[in-house]
Amino acid sequence: MMTMTKLQERSLLGLKDLSRSEIESILDRAEYWAGHEEKLIPVLSSRFVANMFFENSTRTRFSFEMAEKRLGAQVLNFAAAASSVEKGESIYDTVKTLESMGIEAGVIRLKPVGALQELAGKISVPLINAGDGNNEHPTQALLDLFTMKKRFGTLQGLSVSIIGDISHSRVARSDLWALQKFGAEVKFCAPANMAAPELDAPYVSMDEALKSDVVMMLRVQLERHESGILKSAEEYRAQYGLTEERAAKLSKHTLIMHPAPVNRNVEIDDAVVECGQSAIFTQMSNGVPVRMAVMERALR
Amino acid sequence: MMTMTKLQERSLLGLKDLSRSEIESILDRAEYWAGHEEKLIPVLSSRFVANMFFENSTRTRFSFEMAEKRLGAQVLNFAAAASSVEKGESIYDTVKTLESMGIEAGVIRLKPVGALQELAGKISVPLINAGDGNNEHPTQALLDLFTMKKRFGTLQGLSVSIIGDISHSRVARSDLWALQKFGAEVKFCAPANMAAPELDAPYVSMDEALKSDVVMMLRVQLERHESGILKSAEEYRAQYGLTEERAAKLSKHTLIMHPAPVNRNVEIDDAVVECGQSAIFTQMSNGVPVRMAVMERALR
Amino acid sequence: MMTMTKLQERSLLGLKDLSRSEIESILDRAEYWAGHEEKLIPVLSSRFVANMFFENSTRTRFSFEMAEKRLGAQVLNFAAAASSVEKGESIYDTVKTLESMGIEAGVIRLKPVGALQELAGKISVPLINAGDGNNEHPTQALLDLFTMKKRFGTLQGLSVSIIGDISHSRVARSDLWALQKFGAEVKFCAPANMAAPELDAPYVSMDEALKSDVVMMLRVQLERHESGILKSAEEYRAQYGLTEERAAKLSKHTLIMHPAPVNRNVEIDDAVVECGQSAIFTQMSNGVPVRMAVMERALR
Repeated sequence: MMTMTKLQERSLLGLKDLSRSEIESILDRAEYWAGHEEKLIPVLSSRFVANMFFENSTRTRFSFEMAEKRLGAQVLNFAAAASSVEKGESIYDTVKTLESMGIEAGVIRLKPVGALQELAGKISVPLINAGDGNNEHPTQALLDLFTMKKRFGTLQGLSVSIIGDISHSRVARSDLWALQKFGAEVKFCAPANMAAPELDAPYVSMDEALKSDVVMMLRVQLERHESGILKSAEEYRAQYGLTEERAAKLSKHTLIMHPAPVNRNVEIDDAVVECGQSAIFTQMSNGVPVRMAVMERALR
Repeated sequence: MMTMTKLQERSLLGLKDLSRSEIESILDRAEYWAGHEEKLIPVLSSRFVANMFFENSTRTRFSFEMAEKRLGAQVLNFAAAASSVEKGESIYDTVKTLESMGIEAGVIRLKPVGALQELAGKISVPLINAGDGNNEHPTQALLDLFTMKKRFGTLQGLSVSIIGDISHSRVARSDLWALQKFGAEVKFCAPANMAAPELDAPYVSMDEALKSDVVMMLRVQLERHESGILKSAEEYRAQYGLTEERAAKLSKHTLIMHPAPVNRNVEIDDAVVECGQSAIFTQMSNGVPVRMAVMERALR
Repeated sequence: MMTMTKLQERSLLGLKDLSRSEIESILDRAEYWAGHEEKLIPVLSSRFVANMFFENSTRTRFSFEMAEKRLGAQVLNFAAAASSVEKGESIYDTVKTLESMGIEAGVIRLKPVGALQELAGKISVPLINAGDGNNEHPTQALLDLFTMKKRFGTLQGLSVSIIGDISHSRVARSDLWALQKFGAEVKFCAPANMAAPELDAPYVSMDEALKSDVVMMLRVQLERHESGILKSAEEYRAQYGLTEERAAKLSKHTLIMHPAPVNRNVEIDDAVVECGQSAIFTQMSNGVPVRMAVMERALR
């Protein structure tokens, strides 16, 4: 069994408590993997990894599986309908079960806030956070940083606007905390009912937000918000969407990002998704080497 | 990135637009794989394939996975409930995402008519059609041709009756178009509300249909048809089912086929499914080497 | 194709009809695998196994997959919602299909009583029972025996109480039949509506049951029983639960077991699940080498 310190150094629960140099070393290693032409580099062959998704996911699970398999790891997938695992307790039983069976690292997505931190204190294999409630989504933020760094050379002094449903967004939180460690300037732009006043970043107008080096649109899930307060998709797009009109007025050097999946023609117009300034599919490509670095770190 | 021509030569969207010699070369290579005793022949090791099923499937997904794994490929499975991907647009986003993540070929099943053709124009890795709406199911037809050729030596001049719900059948379409390229004579037999008048084949009576060299029964899904026009399962069986009585009257050389899954005692009687003249499970066996040939062609 | 005898020697349909020496040889081989530090020992590489779950399962499927992959086998997973395969007939068609496609062994879980036995007579690859209705769950019982033997050195003369819903429990049946072959003394303890009078074991009071060397709690599924006859979870716990109070009074040498998943604070108290006398997660660990032995036996 690993010592607690070693375990913490291999787990990835969030970026808030990770040092800048730790993050840098993951990004450097991701750069290394991104440079590999070969698809399969079996440095983790005979290592067993479980992807445990207690919340639905397609992209993130697939990206992790791709990363794990490129490294030659043995991969077992577990997915549970949200209904069957409502309580943090049964999530614990399931993860403890898989640990008992001999997995050596677990990628986990779950909904209950705080459950992952609690789990990590009880499980003796490294856990990788693949999204926990509206808390953190560290590998998404890592791939965002990786993408920005590739494009701008440095994160220092970069202005990044995150636009949309901040309150429900784990991506916004992980990006905020990580970017601030690197001296980037993060601004939020959101309707009042989607703001997260507890987070340490200024709110700006849409016009102001669009002047940043990076404009990151968040997926809006209108169904999450109480009706009445809520705007229709059309109203949302008109006020907070990256429409073709708005995109045309962006500075030519501005990078458009989105954690995906996108709601085309709600928070971002169809034609903007794959325009020349959009890094949306590049982000997805970058997710694989980033997660290779994370999995290698967990199992090295 | 591949040139468009190369990509088309590796993709398999349908048989309608594939040349006879292309089809022959796939069948020849399937013959080669069928002759291999060893299960695992890792010619595609370190190649990454995604099976993307936007419509439920058990057999076809399993057959592709078997073929891919026999060739040593790295396989990632993706399945989406039809409900979550109704629009062609979000299918595109998903496939583009998996492509961005580095898959080198995609096997895809989807419902919307025309969506696959549109996808293929936008995606730069080979796509293999595992069934698209009621348009084509090329690997099913390839294994049907393979099965017939093994049994009769040639397809030239072979008479093939396809019986049942032609209008909803992608199998009927792919078989029709492929068989006609080889000089086989295809006839349809169907109740009026299950006919597809746009297809170029004559309709014959049940008695006439049963005189062919091959009698191919289609799965009937009575729930697809408007009630009123529709017959009950019993009525359907009485008029269009391959009952034991009818099977007993077939010429001894006639081959019974069905793309499966069968509705026992609806379109085909229980006792007929595995009778001596039935090739139904042989078809399934043949599906694996046929799909090995198709995947090898995609990734060679 | 294998001879019937050979096939029977490789299949594992249940423990009722397996000889003591057969069981011993599986347990011995499990001991051998349990001693292996390395995770991956590819003695079954290039062998193809299908896990076919016609009834939901997480743990058992995962444990088999872990065992299969540790031995280097090629694994294909198949899961069907109970709704889509109600009839034994379509289970047969599915299994026959996978067999036709070339799988060399099948792990199968299904609900209909008697269906597995019937299947085994028609399928020519070894089948491993991963739970069939309320009949048998042989690999669970094997890991139970393995766990008891490791703890007590021998099964001869061991007293084992199985407490809870005996009538619906395939685990109780497999354990009973296997333990009796080794001279262990099995007792049941259950409310009247959960008893299985056809089984050859005495029923004792809860106080009496707790005096055994092994106290095995069964998962209770109150929703399975007719309301009216039924007790609430609280009542059940009060009468048949292994509460902290009852656990504190157990002899220090008594081993607490449970096939999992547990209903914490129903049949067993939260604090008891991982107490020093509990072997619950040890059972799960032991499941992997036991299933490695079973899969190796199927494919050797």
